[in-house]
Amino acid sequence: MGGINLDKIRVGIVGYGNLGRGVESAIRQNPDMELAAIFTRRQPESMPSTAKMVHMSEIDNYIGKIDVMILCGGSATDLPEQGPSIASMFHTVDSFDRHAKINEYFDSVDASAKKSGHASVISTGWDPGLFSLNRLLAEAVLPEGKEYTFWGKGVSQGHSDAIRRIQGVNNAVQYTVPNEEAVNLVRKGENPVLSARDKHLRECFVVAEPGEDLSRIEKEITTMPDYFADYETQVHFISAEELQEKHSLMPHGGLVLRSGITGAASKQIIEFGLNLASNPEFTGSVLVAYARAISRFAKEGFVGAKTVFDIPFGYLSPKSAEQLRRELL
Amino acid sequence: MGGINLDKIRVGIVGYGNLGRGVESAIRQNPDMELAAIFTRRQPESMPSTAKMVHMSEIDNYIGKIDVMILCGGSATDLPEQGPSIASMFHTVDSFDRHAKINEYFDSVDASAKKSGHASVISTGWDPGLFSLNRLLAEAVLPEGKEYTFWGKGVSQGHSDAIRRIQGVNNAVQYTVPNEEAVNLVRKGENPVLSARDKHLRECFVVAEPGEDLSRIEKEITTMPDYFADYETQVHFISAEELQEKHSLMPHGGLVLRSGITGAASKQIIEFGLNLASNPEFTGSVLVAYARAISRFAKEGFVGAKTVFDIPFGYLSPKSAEQLRRELL
Repeated sequence: MGGINLDKIRVGIVGYGNLGRGVESAIRQNPDMELAAIFTRRQPESMPSTAKMVHMSEIDNYIGKIDVMILCGGSATDLPEQGPSIASMFHTVDSFDRHAKINEYFDSVDASAKKSGHASVISTGWDPGLFSLNRLLAEAVLPEGKEYTFWGKGVSQGHSDAIRRIQGVNNAVQYTVPNEEAVNLVRKGENPVLSARDKHLRECFVVAEPGEDLSRIEKEITTMPDYFADYETQVHFISAEELQEKHSLMPHGGLVLRSGITGAASKQIIEFGLNLASNPEFTGSVLVAYARAISRFAKEGFVGAKTVFDIPFGYLSPKSAEQLRRELL
Repeated sequence: MGGINLDKIRVGIVGYGNLGRGVESAIRQNPDMELAAIFTRRQPESMPSTAKMVHMSEIDNYIGKIDVMILCGGSATDLPEQGPSIASMFHTVDSFDRHAKINEYFDSVDASAKKSGHASVISTGWDPGLFSLNRLLAEAVLPEGKEYTFWGKGVSQGHSDAIRRIQGVNNAVQYTVPNEEAVNLVRKGENPVLSARDKHLRECFVVAEPGEDLSRIEKEITTMPDYFADYETQVHFISAEELQEKHSLMPHGGLVLRSGITGAASKQIIEFGLNLASNPEFTGSVLVAYARAISRFAKEGFVGAKTVFDIPFGYLSPKSAEQLRRELL
């Protein structure tokens, strides 16, 4: 017979940017899954993968042949359309990350999945995702306390893009850097009041076009509302070669801390941290674990949308409940 | 009407040692719960609490009047008997922590709860409990990797109790101390091979009965299987006064680290850490959050036993799913 193994979870990837490639490599690390196809809006022939590349317009030909679709498009324009649309044909996993729109997005995916009898998990990854889980856990265990999230050191795509849109900028990479002093105050249980600029620095590596006024570019960056104006921002002008050589990786990470009190005045600190050499590969690995979970929920008859808050950790693992109790509890 | 509020989760505590008192104070921090009674094998009149103290022999008078019993006895002898016995009358939460016996204990509580139509969650707290959850999560996300758990610096009740059971020992406190060098190697992603004794020291402060053979006690400690035999163990004999003065607090904590690889060779580190001024108050706080969860599962019709692996984090919080998505995702 050969070919597709029906016992494996057949996964499709929608969108083949950094995250899509991260999911592709994560699937290879999970023997209970196989990559059935990657869907792209570009020319499938032009895509650099050994996987089966298919144009997005043909996705409905794969109904019944793919168990879970992992949606790797952006949250600004791709997912609001693709989430509900693909949930009408397949079980789905995504990393929708616009916090202010999460309930609206949840409702639209939930309605579509319920109508068509599918199961979806939205907003996975690490923030939203693993960080959200730790915020919830820490708050439930320490109701009297204060929560702190620090991001970095890591590249922010959104902030890098914002710099690249400035006239005279050829390329740029922005690192979000947590303020170590602030982190240490929190770790000591001192519950400091921290503004956005107290918690993070923004460090920018910028390649300018020849002959541009660097001080004008620097000022446009440091005064940019929402992105930089509220932060301590450092701007370094470097060559295109140096940017390529030293700043082309995508590290990231961060910390979720909760500092709480129990009893009379016992200080209790819960800390969750990530130190990631590759942000998209790690995010992809989280999405793949949640693909396993939603595929199991679907097999049990669940239809509709879930978030990480609704999924027991046991569903993320290929091991049986008895094995998990024996090995990991 | 006054008195008991039927909307609140009515909680009972079985056993009033350090953990029982930790649970008592945690219940006060959760307005959706109320402490109905504390059950003890000692003389209820002699117990220093403003709560209602009841002798264990009267526990069956409280069937229908208490929603969840939080079992605060020890894992060595109390819980193997109390777990299944109380699960035949009430929903239960416990912190059973004998790793090697967990499946056997699970099966006995599960059978009793199923037979009587109750719901139980076993082995909660922080290890087993929150640490177990992080081991599972990190392994599911980073299947190619290595997991490290470090405990301390802190008092281990189980190990202290084990010393106290030795003939001729009047009192004892055992500190588990992580090896900082080992922790730092793991954080750097160097994946060291560490035996139990490379990771921790065990430091014991022991008050002996007058006239006992100290070298016999020391040998019984250092050779005790499971608890001490595999570790570098230091034993200090001190006076009852010194133990009271210097070792009566119960700090603890620890780290669960997973160091994994994704893609070609991207190092990814997941770290979960606790820094606890009071171990029993923190453990009590975890038990109380899981009491909320099992009470909800029971309302949904679940009967039988669960572990932390089977419970979505959303069940731990008094907030609605919509509110959790809005505030914490």
